[in-house]
Amino acid sequence: MHSDLSRLIELDRERKRIAHIGAILGWDQETCMPPKAVDERSEQLALIESLAHEKSVRPEIGELLLRLGSTSANPSGDSSLDQIERAYLRVLRRAWDRDTKLPADLVAEFARAVSLGQAAWVEAKKNNDFPAFAPHLEKILGLIRRQAACLDPGKGAYDVLLDLYEPGSTEASVAAIFSRLRKDLVGILTKIRSRPQIDDSILHETVGEARQKAGSDWIMDLLDFDRGRGRLDISAHPFTTTLGVDDVRITTRYIPDYYPSSLFSTMHETGHALYELGIAPGPDFQGTELAEAASMAVHESQSRFWENMVGRGDAFWKRNFRHLAELVSPALDGVRREDFVRAINRVAPSFIRTEADEVTYGLHIILRFELESDLVSGRLAVPDLPAAWKVKARELLGLEVRDDVHGCLQDVHWSAGLFGYFPSYALGNLYAAQFATAMRKDLPDFDDRISAGDTASILGWLREKVHASGSTWLPSELIERVTGSALDPSHFVAYLEGKYSRIYGY
Amino acid sequence: MHSDLSRLIELDRERKRIAHIGAILGWDQETCMPPKAVDERSEQLALIESLAHEKSVRPEIGELLLRLGSTSANPSGDSSLDQIERAYLRVLRRAWDRDTKLPADLVAEFARAVSLGQAAWVEAKKNNDFPAFAPHLEKILGLIRRQAACLDPGKGAYDVLLDLYEPGSTEASVAAIFSRLRKDLVGILTKIRSRPQIDDSILHETVGEARQKAGSDWIMDLLDFDRGRGRLDISAHPFTTTLGVDDVRITTRYIPDYYPSSLFSTMHETGHALYELGIAPGPDFQGTELAEAASMAVHESQSRFWENMVGRGDAFWKRNFRHLAELVSPALDGVRREDFVRAINRVAPSFIRTEADEVTYGLHIILRFELESDLVSGRLAVPDLPAAWKVKARELLGLEVRDDVHGCLQDVHWSAGLFGYFPSYALGNLYAAQFATAMRKDLPDFDDRISAGDTASILGWLREKVHASGSTWLPSELIERVTGSALDPSHFVAYLEGKYSRIYGY
Repeated sequence: MHSDLSRLIELDRERKRIAHIGAILGWDQETCMPPKAVDERSEQLALIESLAHEKSVRPEIGELLLRLGSTSANPSGDSSLDQIERAYLRVLRRAWDRDTKLPADLVAEFARAVSLGQAAWVEAKKNNDFPAFAPHLEKILGLIRRQAACLDPGKGAYDVLLDLYEPGSTEASVAAIFSRLRKDLVGILTKIRSRPQIDDSILHETVGEARQKAGSDWIMDLLDFDRGRGRLDISAHPFTTTLGVDDVRITTRYIPDYYPSSLFSTMHETGHALYELGIAPGPDFQGTELAEAASMAVHESQSRFWENMVGRGDAFWKRNFRHLAELVSPALDGVRREDFVRAINRVAPSFIRTEADEVTYGLHIILRFELESDLVSGRLAVPDLPAAWKVKARELLGLEVRDDVHGCLQDVHWSAGLFGYFPSYALGNLYAAQFATAMRKDLPDFDDRISAGDTASILGWLREKVHASGSTWLPSELIERVTGSALDPSHFVAYLEGKYSRIYGY
Repeated sequence: MHSDLSRLIELDRERKRIAHIGAILGWDQETCMPPKAVDERSEQLALIESLAHEKSVRPEIGELLLRLGSTSANPSGDSSLDQIERAYLRVLRRAWDRDTKLPADLVAEFARAVSLGQAAWVEAKKNNDFPAFAPHLEKILGLIRRQAACLDPGKGAYDVLLDLYEPGSTEASVAAIFSRLRKDLVGILTKIRSRPQIDDSILHETVGEARQKAGSDWIMDLLDFDRGRGRLDISAHPFTTTLGVDDVRITTRYIPDYYPSSLFSTMHETGHALYELGIAPGPDFQGTELAEAASMAVHESQSRFWENMVGRGDAFWKRNFRHLAELVSPALDGVRREDFVRAINRVAPSFIRTEADEVTYGLHIILRFELESDLVSGRLAVPDLPAAWKVKARELLGLEVRDDVHGCLQDVHWSAGLFGYFPSYALGNLYAAQFATAMRKDLPDFDDRISAGDTASILGWLREKVHASGSTWLPSELIERVTGSALDPSHFVAYLEGKYSRIYGY
């Protein structure tokens, strides 16, 4: 390997290592830290962030990138380099540009604005008082637009933001996908609403924490989560975090009268963790920027694949229902597997995104995509947001939103300055379904394998096709390589049609 | 405050904050980390250590110290400064000299030598093979002598090492104290050995982990450990670690057939934690070098005070025995409090330091002090260590050491390069007893307070007299201020005489 490249990797690993140290502090804060340490922890995190930034913007990195031929216009560098080396230069140039193009005062102003914004959002949500939050949202949007202009003045602001989470995507490309998806989801929902609805009250029996934890441990073992390289803890909101190449941790929460919450969140987070643990672009690139997920949406595809396509499927429960019933006994005593599977797949439009089912979830996201792209472009003014939300909720979900707590104040993202992030959630479902279609060609007995407890061959397929390459490929390249075609919502729609026409009998 | 001093405090807080981040990584490694992350964690720790070193040796710190008049010869700086400011300059100059006087290649060579040395020690201990470890010990001793010469070429090497852990102490001052202590401990032990011995088999009933944990939680609450600023976890060896001003964590371990282990180790570590949490040299100096313990021995005085002088005392169990018996039931069913208190105070010479009782513990330390000072000075050659150990064990403990695993291979310290550390353990007992004598003058009803559950007034006394000042005073100054006289082993000896003459009836 070129000595400039070796040196670059060394510098990159150091910045990644500091990021992992930050993740250790973050994990501890959410799972273990005593409450009075919170102010000091935020100072510790700020210090680690500034150290990580220092390491990320070392001029030597920029010089080495240039020496290897990598520029913003030609990120992959010299054509004489290996393919993987060129892929590496591409992702590192991308990170370098992102880290160096924002002026320090803008970064600091943004940090202050989102810190104040999040506090204001918490209060506004508590008091159903959107006007109290509006000036903060205005301020954050202004800074977001300035950031986008710094990162790429030649592109639309929302395109720049989308590209941060889903590299290569644009407002137009996402809008094209979502307009097809929107029509099909509304169609499926209409058919479901015409049928007798499902009662899922059988899922609301009380199950103690120790048994719910045993359930989570069992799920992790079923899905081959390597406990030597990770662990399960409790936090207020479930998450997955990477503390190192060999240290990926997940969390869940135990709701006494709704054990499916911990069961399915554990599957979801295990899906994220299996992706992180499966990234292996070769020993030369371990612990580097190349050993990152391809995108947020591809990440989400892995969590939703395991949670929904495996974990809410009949095949999975054919094998595992009896053991679950023993674990949560007497909560499922006398319940038939078929009724359990119907209950965990109940579809019903609701106000809150995080509680949405597989069918309506995408509609929640489309709503947010349409509103946030309008907000960023200025087509929608901040004071008009609550009314615009209500109109979209009626159109997309058929719901009359009664207050902003059940509308535009429900999510943390905008107050945290996360614009362009929401689409990843819905795109993740599309990637998952398209990967699954390809998988079924290679493993036509997919359902039988699941029923027989052979999730290992499925994980093996994902590791080889999706996980291992990390961010070697853009998401659009990855989906082409794995499935032979561009991202196409028809796979997800066909999956929903097949599943819900059976469940609802339409 | 002088602006140079404010800036110095700012730089100092940053280096301390990185040390706390390192402590978070270390705590996680011992309590939570999945096993396969161990190699990566050591790289993360090495990175944090190098960042901490960078921050510690910033030339600006040295310049500011000089500008404030602080030199190695006059560490406290300008006489026009406040007393606390001068104390602060003294401790920071001390740290600065320690951090800057060792050449980088010596630091690196030492790190390698102790890393190899510890691995060799583990093997040698497993195989009872001192000769395999001897060359490592030789190497480490050579580097230790070089370090001492760098730190202060004008002093004896062992004096320099002792001063790292117990500032202001010397081989001669420790030897003077230990020679009196040795005579008195041997005298007490002889009297105890002439009496009927105590059988502590009543302590070896099996108690499950959940109930032992409840016992540890109960002890922490009894001793007013603020759970908002700390927590309890499990590790292979109990320890206390400071992750921040408001985050001090302790650990214990649960031995199924010996619950007193977790009970008393929790008292011990809680004592350490209460000290750390009580350090409060004023808001200006929070999170600085002044907010550190006065010394290792003063730290140990706090753990041993709570573990032994409170926790193994009859007054404590007058109030708490019944509740303990309920917690561990049926392990103590039918056992009288008097017999429980006798059993937890059984004295018997044994080979292993970490299992020693209050009387023989000091003899284990004196043995090590005499041997390690001879090793460092070269008066004792490494190959002669096993034989020298056996002679001392016979003299001090009346024991015939049958192999080096029960002799000079038992402790990790020397393989880790920790020479000069052992005396702190015994000095801690002396500080504890002398503090207790002074405390009984202010609180003559000490025992009644303990029996009445009023440990708060005792903690309040320690906070005010011992904890709050941090490292404002040298240990020798602190003991003078608190008790009116220099460290004197007679208080500890009188405490042992009073307690064990009652227990053994001599």
